[in-house]
Amino acid sequence: MPLFFKISHLFLLLFVSTLSSSSSPFGYNHPLDSLTLSELTQVKTIVKKSYLLINVTFHYVGLNEPEKPLVLSWISINHPTKNPPREAIVITQIDQKTHEIIVDLSSDSILSDKIYDGHGYPMLTSQEQNVAEKLPFTYQPFISSIEKRGLRLKEVVCQSSTVGWYGEKRKSNRMIKLIYYYLDGMVNLYMRPIEGITIVVGLDQMKIASYLDRLMVPVPKADGTDYIEPKPRARSNLQLDGKRIMQPDGPTFTLDGNAVRWADWKFHVDYDMRAGIIISLASIFDDDKGEFRSVLYRGFISEVFVPYMDLSEDWYDRTFFDAGEFGFGLSAVELQASKECPENAKFLDGYSIYQDGTPGKMPNVICIFEHYAGDIMWRHTELAIPGEVIEKVKPAVSLVVRMVSTVGNYDYITDYEFKQSGSIKVTASLTGIMEMKAVKYTNSDQINQDVYGTLVAENTIAVNHDHFLTYHIDLDVDGRNNSFLKAKQKTERFKDKKMSPRKSYWTVVKQTMKTESEGRTQLGLEPAELWFVNAEKKTKV
Amino acid sequence: MPLFFKISHLFLLLFVSTLSSSSSPFGYNHPLDSLTLSELTQVKTIVKKSYLLINVTFHYVGLNEPEKPLVLSWISINHPTKNPPREAIVITQIDQKTHEIIVDLSSDSILSDKIYDGHGYPMLTSQEQNVAEKLPFTYQPFISSIEKRGLRLKEVVCQSSTVGWYGEKRKSNRMIKLIYYYLDGMVNLYMRPIEGITIVVGLDQMKIASYLDRLMVPVPKADGTDYIEPKPRARSNLQLDGKRIMQPDGPTFTLDGNAVRWADWKFHVDYDMRAGIIISLASIFDDDKGEFRSVLYRGFISEVFVPYMDLSEDWYDRTFFDAGEFGFGLSAVELQASKECPENAKFLDGYSIYQDGTPGKMPNVICIFEHYAGDIMWRHTELAIPGEVIEKVKPAVSLVVRMVSTVGNYDYITDYEFKQSGSIKVTASLTGIMEMKAVKYTNSDQINQDVYGTLVAENTIAVNHDHFLTYHIDLDVDGRNNSFLKAKQKTERFKDKKMSPRKSYWTVVKQTMKTESEGRTQLGLEPAELWFVNAEKKTKV
Repeated sequence: MPLFFKISHLFLLLFVSTLSSSSSPFGYNHPLDSLTLSELTQVKTIVKKSYLLINVTFHYVGLNEPEKPLVLSWISINHPTKNPPREAIVITQIDQKTHEIIVDLSSDSILSDKIYDGHGYPMLTSQEQNVAEKLPFTYQPFISSIEKRGLRLKEVVCQSSTVGWYGEKRKSNRMIKLIYYYLDGMVNLYMRPIEGITIVVGLDQMKIASYLDRLMVPVPKADGTDYIEPKPRARSNLQLDGKRIMQPDGPTFTLDGNAVRWADWKFHVDYDMRAGIIISLASIFDDDKGEFRSVLYRGFISEVFVPYMDLSEDWYDRTFFDAGEFGFGLSAVELQASKECPENAKFLDGYSIYQDGTPGKMPNVICIFEHYAGDIMWRHTELAIPGEVIEKVKPAVSLVVRMVSTVGNYDYITDYEFKQSGSIKVTASLTGIMEMKAVKYTNSDQINQDVYGTLVAENTIAVNHDHFLTYHIDLDVDGRNNSFLKAKQKTERFKDKKMSPRKSYWTVVKQTMKTESEGRTQLGLEPAELWFVNAEKKTKV
Repeated sequence: MPLFFKISHLFLLLFVSTLSSSSSPFGYNHPLDSLTLSELTQVKTIVKKSYLLINVTFHYVGLNEPEKPLVLSWISINHPTKNPPREAIVITQIDQKTHEIIVDLSSDSILSDKIYDGHGYPMLTSQEQNVAEKLPFTYQPFISSIEKRGLRLKEVVCQSSTVGWYGEKRKSNRMIKLIYYYLDGMVNLYMRPIEGITIVVGLDQMKIASYLDRLMVPVPKADGTDYIEPKPRARSNLQLDGKRIMQPDGPTFTLDGNAVRWADWKFHVDYDMRAGIIISLASIFDDDKGEFRSVLYRGFISEVFVPYMDLSEDWYDRTFFDAGEFGFGLSAVELQASKECPENAKFLDGYSIYQDGTPGKMPNVICIFEHYAGDIMWRHTELAIPGEVIEKVKPAVSLVVRMVSTVGNYDYITDYEFKQSGSIKVTASLTGIMEMKAVKYTNSDQINQDVYGTLVAENTIAVNHDHFLTYHIDLDVDGRNNSFLKAKQKTERFKDKKMSPRKSYWTVVKQTMKTESEGRTQLGLEPAELWFVNAEKKTKV
């Protein structure tokens, strides 16, 4: 996965200079609302004031989430007089050191400012990547390497890639590698990697730290892989992109600030630079009890780890953290009705920051829509009652909250689907283009070693890799006291014909996990139902 | 699963007496078309003629599929002069023996008539079940059992259930058990089982063969389980059943008889009394090659096995074959737009038979529709090319062929989804109502033995069970010569830092199965890709 983003293009177009966009006197409506445009501007001012004349690079600004008991108390009262504290967490680089700064917005002050010296670095900014990607084009050894290959420099494009960490002694500063592709009239650059050149850039000095040209293999041809204007298809005479009016009477959900109400559900949805979508305080109305029952306190993508399985010099360190290094929210694209979302979608904006701390609007990065495809939620036909045919059908309508994050060649579609049954289905769909490696081989028969992937075209290997998405899921099923319960099948076999004419049956053994390590579960190894329950709350049976 | 159907109600309403409904001189258009109404009538006449004055019960009539080479040859020629033979397979009971009769329709004759004496019996007819279910209501021991429980006979409804086979010496004749429910003003009968009475009916004699009243437990109350007129919900003010115009310009697929064309796909779809939907000759156009490439010769549900995991006298033999005993096609319901299928669906009829051999129309048992829910098939945003933002989105539109079969309490939604990617996604969704068992317990704390299920309400156990759907899938991927290939991940670990700063990676090991037993695969145990390929056809790489 070539990793980069140039959202600065978008920022420049879309930057909004008005500082007030909220309706409450505090500039926000809900204690879990992400920081508003005016709050982000306030954060920048406060931090800059305490580092006068010192260069501060802003890598992340987000809401410093109030303590959970404060939020739960706030929502339990209809018009609370006292709001939870409104704080920001700011991750900066100051003098090549990572600072974690907590800013209190009500008192206009810095609450704490700690230097982080553990493993890892802050998210990359798009500005520093943009600058780094331009370095090779004036670097003579690189210019020579391109000429030596018979390629034209102006057709070369560059993307930044992270370097990972493999247990080595900690590196002294932040570094990225650069990856090159050859356009030459094509837009599908991932099909045309220029293989064999390794450039490492030190970001703090913004200089090329090391250069290695170790291998020359042909740039793949990539004929017929244009996805912008593919050749017309002979048989597909169908207007598959044709209009579908999904809800002529408009959406059936309501959006009050970032609070969503749909069917029996209510929840809060917001945007974060790193995590993308954050769902909070999801609860569902129980008609029998006459009250809302909590399901999820807070849920979001905490990391996306993408290790490639190629040990060669240019590839072994392609083990990306797509959220932590590149920002799932920062990589979000502007969604469009009838394209990424259906016609009946509503859209939400997000606010992000430049590396100088200035906020910018990310328009329409979240869409919310009623999802219906003609499927059935529940049905039954009853023919057993004499003289009566009973037929009842309920359509499968759900509510989807969606974001699309493009990190290099991959586009992640992340959905939170709220079902009428009370469940939330979390989906990540991967699309985009495969990361290719150029090789000398033109036919599989020539290959006699591990090439770490599949030869998909002449000189082109699609490299083996994984995507591991980890979610932060703080469930509050019927309250905070949740347990993890496994219900496993157990087969009982017997030979006593008096016991039963059968030879076996299965029964269910339930086990509530006592520790987190006991709860570790490898999915797929055995049939099991996995439940999160509030073990203290019982039904009447 | 209480097993029964009373489609005779529907038959009586919908019987069509015209004998010609097809457009070709042969009464059919395609060698894999199911038997037409006129052909089914012809079958009845031919069989009855050879058994004059003898009672023949028709249990199944279907197309005797022509040999595959004949069909493949027929479709390879545009206007073949010679059609494959048109034959019917008829399964009857004659003098308590099962006959498998092959009828040749062109010569109006019986080709073969074999007595089957292996295990098992033909599909049940709905007529014989209807008659059997009435027997207890004039049977004094049953009337006394109902009175003893303080119940009113006119509120009791009855369903037939099969008896299975557990390796015992073969039973001399066809038998079913009967299951009872207590309505008493409720429509949700499955919530109100009358437990403890075992009645076995011999179908050939149509008499009660054995009777046992062994246990009295309360009939569950089933309050609040009415699904017809549930109480209005306080919060759900949404019109979830509201209209959604999916395709204002109409469907984009064409239906010529039973031949479907959509996007790059073409295939044949039909109805069978036992299997339900049959998909044949699915192939997809390859624009690069300029030809259709075959994918699936023929696919359908061959059986649905539903064993319950309760060893008690009334329950141990509830191990149903929902297709082979009750008929997935015979149990199909009439589908409706905006209910089981979206507004843009087209519908197909099926033809089935009564036990006297008379055919009847099963209207709208199959629906076909373009499936779209605002999801994305493929997308990419490209920001790496200086001065350009490229964005391309293709919507996830597929074509679905659907049937709903109601077998007692369960409703099976069976879908064949044709995707633009060239894959066919086969889905079975189970809905309807759980099969309940009445018990003495009113609270889980009282239970100190295996009750074979979960106490879901006072006196009510939802009994543990499985549904095993088996499919007949005759793939012809790029021709008939298909192999089954497994691609497994293999982890390589090493400690030599010179080899790589990493400690491990995984690679892929591909294995083509040589025998069917080698191909046996337990899903879920390890990450693997499973492929059916034509190993003789190679791409140019």
